[in-house]
Amino acid sequence: MQGLAASSRIVLVVFLFSMAGAAAADGRKRVVSSSSDEPCTKMTLYLHDILYNGVNNSQNATAAPATRPTALGTTYFSNNTFFGMMVVFNDLVTEGKELPVGNEKPAALAQGFYFYDKKETYAAWFSFSLVFNSAAHKGTLNVMGADPMDEDTRDFTVVGGTGDFFMARGIVTIRTDLVQGSFYFRLQMDIKLYECYV
Amino acid sequence: MQGLAASSRIVLVVFLFSMAGAAAADGRKRVVSSSSDEPCTKMTLYLHDILYNGVNNSQNATAAPATRPTALGTTYFSNNTFFGMMVVFNDLVTEGKELPVGNEKPAALAQGFYFYDKKETYAAWFSFSLVFNSAAHKGTLNVMGADPMDEDTRDFTVVGGTGDFFMARGIVTIRTDLVQGSFYFRLQMDIKLYECYV
Amino acid sequence: MQGLAASSRIVLVVFLFSMAGAAAADGRKRVVSSSSDEPCTKMTLYLHDILYNGVNNSQNATAAPATRPTALGTTYFSNNTFFGMMVVFNDLVTEGKELPVGNEKPAALAQGFYFYDKKETYAAWFSFSLVFNSAAHKGTLNVMGADPMDEDTRDFTVVGGTGDFFMARGIVTIRTDLVQGSFYFRLQMDIKLYECYV
Repeated sequence: MQGLAASSRIVLVVFLFSMAGAAAADGRKRVVSSSSDEPCTKMTLYLHDILYNGVNNSQNATAAPATRPTALGTTYFSNNTFFGMMVVFNDLVTEGKELPVGNEKPAALAQGFYFYDKKETYAAWFSFSLVFNSAAHKGTLNVMGADPMDEDTRDFTVVGGTGDFFMARGIVTIRTDLVQGSFYFRLQMDIKLYECYV
Repeated sequence: MQGLAASSRIVLVVFLFSMAGAAAADGRKRVVSSSSDEPCTKMTLYLHDILYNGVNNSQNATAAPATRPTALGTTYFSNNTFFGMMVVFNDLVTEGKELPVGNEKPAALAQGFYFYDKKETYAAWFSFSLVFNSAAHKGTLNVMGADPMDEDTRDFTVVGGTGDFFMARGIVTIRTDLVQGSFYFRLQMDIKLYECYV
Repeated sequence: MQGLAASSRIVLVVFLFSMAGAAAADGRKRVVSSSSDEPCTKMTLYLHDILYNGVNNSQNATAAPATRPTALGTTYFSNNTFFGMMVVFNDLVTEGKELPVGNEKPAALAQGFYFYDKKETYAAWFSFSLVFNSAAHKGTLNVMGADPMDEDTRDFTVVGGTGDFFMARGIVTIRTDLVQGSFYFRLQMDIKLYECYV
């Protein structure tokens, strides 16, 4: 009995390691957070959406409508947005609130699209990749979710990651930090990962 | 030996809790289902897609084409759909089969898009958020998947969630419950989550 | 003490099984890989994107632009692609490099969309389902991610799966295997799943 106890204990340990102490690329170990107050990775970044204004900012613009108004879009159209308008973006993402100056590199690029999906007020839906290629991080985080803009904060989900963010999952809480006219907005993104390989 | 056994047993317990008994927001605990017959959360909802008919339903319509036919779309066009047609929607989702009456609130909104991707027959691809804001649930479920409409049931995946559905994963089995002409369809959605925080 | 030790050992075993030895549909067991070098499922497939050329290949084409150039798209236009161009596809996927011949069935279909999101060079963003309906596999894998085409290999994430790939997660490493003019490319996809039910 004592012998059996000892050997089954070993089985348990092996089982545990094969299942949850899983090592990732470069010998990293899988970590699942024990609490929503204790994400395994946490960072705050700012996304700058510089929309093409149709006139004179094609050089600076990092986003542009990919569709033209269809019938319902024409009916529900205001402030240069319309129902069903899809915008493709390749936006600069920074650690601070300011756009990169001179040769400064952004923290990441946000590559993806959003579209407006509400007739009377503003609401959007996003799907994009945060593409990191800096000294700090190399890899991507893939994100999607609804953006009901009339709420102070909104939550997207991190549905996967690659490279330094291999197999990540988590939450991105966004907050509209600044809006300038119809062609620039800045989103604060509080990123918390609850599944990491560290 | 006996002492070692006892202490390694404690290590195991701590390890287990730190890894899998993970608590979520509001002290919830992570639950991973033990069987596909035993989802940790289960619900059936109905999605109502009321497409803009281009004539007289702009008030009621909750969905509209976001693109116009391109070359291949014009070639493969029938029943008001065409290859590559993208539809943006903000559809009502209900617990029963009927649309909400009077001041009744929907169970959720389905915000996202689908597009047709088959030349000869009908097949679509969906990506959307179920946005809950009721007494029963607050939060979102993010969903995506292929919809080969000629099959009786099709499976989408729940790739993430927020709020009450923090970090959820699962399956949405859809079934076309009703089609009325070219501008209304109702989908039955059997939602089963296999990763929950409860 | 000895009795307590024995009973707590049983509790541990039960706990382990309820939590991580989770059985999936058809009595499958959940497997989380112990290392990025040891995926629980691994396969290499080739995706063939045959783009409609606007002239004479509507029968063979499996992909077509779903949008027309908007203002910024017209400015940044070359080789039949433009910023914001969205392409809907229903591409053949094969185990070898060749397209299916005669009655040969493809290994899968890749149904989804991509769009170009870079002004000066080529970069794209993909979201799609691999739809398997063969003797070997039935089910889907849902995939998304950024495609910075100037890198030799790029990583998408598998964000979920259905059927034989119930609740799967993993990585798809793509490599451009062949480009023929503006209307055909072949991607090699090395698919590695790190969460499986087997």
